[in-house]
Amino acid sequence: MGGHGGASRLDTARIRAARRAINPILLNTPLYRCQALTPGLGCTVSIKLETANPVRSFKARGTELVTTGLAGTGSTAVVCASAGNLGQALAWSGRARGLEVTVVASRFAPAAKLDRIRALGARLELVDGDFDLARQRAAALARHDGIRLVEDSLDLETCEGAATIGLELADTAPSFDAVLIALGGGALATGVGHVLKALAPHVEVICVQPLGAPAMTRSWQQRRVVTTASTDTIADGVAGRHPIPAVLNDLLQVADDAVLVQETSIIAGMRMLLHHAGLIAEPSAALGIAAILEDRDRFAGRHVVTIVCGSNVDMAAYHRWVGGAHVPRR
Amino acid sequence: MGGHGGASRLDTARIRAARRAINPILLNTPLYRCQALTPGLGCTVSIKLETANPVRSFKARGTELVTTGLAGTGSTAVVCASAGNLGQALAWSGRARGLEVTVVASRFAPAAKLDRIRALGARLELVDGDFDLARQRAAALARHDGIRLVEDSLDLETCEGAATIGLELADTAPSFDAVLIALGGGALATGVGHVLKALAPHVEVICVQPLGAPAMTRSWQQRRVVTTASTDTIADGVAGRHPIPAVLNDLLQVADDAVLVQETSIIAGMRMLLHHAGLIAEPSAALGIAAILEDRDRFAGRHVVTIVCGSNVDMAAYHRWVGGAHVPRR
Repeated sequence: MGGHGGASRLDTARIRAARRAINPILLNTPLYRCQALTPGLGCTVSIKLETANPVRSFKARGTELVTTGLAGTGSTAVVCASAGNLGQALAWSGRARGLEVTVVASRFAPAAKLDRIRALGARLELVDGDFDLARQRAAALARHDGIRLVEDSLDLETCEGAATIGLELADTAPSFDAVLIALGGGALATGVGHVLKALAPHVEVICVQPLGAPAMTRSWQQRRVVTTASTDTIADGVAGRHPIPAVLNDLLQVADDAVLVQETSIIAGMRMLLHHAGLIAEPSAALGIAAILEDRDRFAGRHVVTIVCGSNVDMAAYHRWVGGAHVPRR
Repeated sequence: MGGHGGASRLDTARIRAARRAINPILLNTPLYRCQALTPGLGCTVSIKLETANPVRSFKARGTELVTTGLAGTGSTAVVCASAGNLGQALAWSGRARGLEVTVVASRFAPAAKLDRIRALGARLELVDGDFDLARQRAAALARHDGIRLVEDSLDLETCEGAATIGLELADTAPSFDAVLIALGGGALATGVGHVLKALAPHVEVICVQPLGAPAMTRSWQQRRVVTTASTDTIADGVAGRHPIPAVLNDLLQVADDAVLVQETSIIAGMRMLLHHAGLIAEPSAALGIAAILEDRDRFAGRHVVTIVCGSNVDMAAYHRWVGGAHVPRR
């Protein structure tokens, strides 16, 4: 893609080194072909499973780096805004290192995520608005209290932590043609994309975002930050409105494509992962399957890796999505 | 337990060597504390997850050994009886090595398991009876065709393959007090139990079987083979009636206890794994949680590992079990 706006902030050697700071139970996650998905999707699908860990998402790879870094500085407190998964991860990593963790989240975030943040011992503050309002509030708290603010995707540790997934894909998958990555703030896409462009440049890096929360995708398409006034998607984990310029710059250098998918496809993707892979996926984790469903010709006969990046769902909502009669069957 | 009936057939050095014959994607499966289960169970629970692989159960660890061993012998065909998971595993391992695989199963086995056996390219023969009838038929086929019969739990490879899970528990879990193991034919329990008694002898090895299929547990209790006339359990993966004497002998040397659980506890266990761990478990894979639910005092405050050994369920049945009447899909 070339160097829009200057060099990437990401560095493969730093990412390799980062692995040492991450609790090993988060690393070397399952990666396997799921043949049962092939008849419905028309391609070979390998799953990179990031849900079989204490926080049920990939986010703790990054919070391990953040909190390991803090340990040497004398800091005893840290705050982040979170759609729900970063907060759990920071609470988990922070607790292990004796840090006082504050998480700011939208009161509309899934109750399951909020409950788990509290259960992991963090202080949870709710804002009466969306993730971008939570970001503002977390920044204000950090300024006021003089403590470390963790900003998802902006803070390099969050990108480097996610990028370690890319190392595992490059090291263990003998050959695949494309990787489908959920696109929200951009840490996962820029991190994994950077490593694959460095170590497996033949792999097509495709970002997937909901049509109802398209800010980063529109920004990538127009090569400048595009914001939206609102979001409307069940994929709460990727529903931001204000892309971060530095992250967009990184993304422009590694993403081969960014596509938008419909809510019905996300739901169909969750149902396919349940019925054919036996996996609970939160909506953001089904974006890759949704992208295949919406463009089968593009992927026909190819070998595609999709990162199942989280499984934190409210079960009542999940049952409505995957069990409801109104949703077209696959 | 001492040497009832002679030495165990299992050997830790052989089990260590066996790892090299197993496709690495089956090894080093996730092992993590699931804190969200603690409030409901009153103890610390770590999950050893054996479902995030191409056959969604631990059985392929054993079939890798069987088929690797066959590769040097000139054999081109192999047959097994299966409750459903061994058949998938043998089909998967056999296909990778160009073997012709025949699986004999009960026509009452879950359709999802039978469909997957066929999809993996095996010839599937159904018998109008239970697993023990399938065993007889598979043995007759092997004699008639002069091909290798794989007998789950009797054939040492199936025990040694399962035993590699024990190595991973001993190597990576810093400290736990007990392991809960689904008990059916006995390969998983004898294999994992043997390794833990050798490498982590402080760990209590507890086998769990359904009250509706108690043959092996009764045999362990009475230290002699006890058969039953029938089985009545949703845990299809462990529903045998005729324990194998050599396997019982191995089990007597490593199991500290064998307990029986009710169907309602198995269902409650599946529901807890879904709601608090985000995991689809087949009934056999929820036996460990069921055992905790039935005897909370025994486990209070302890650290328990449970092996989630399979996720192959018919979704309609699964929804009935975990979702109640309001989720009638498929």
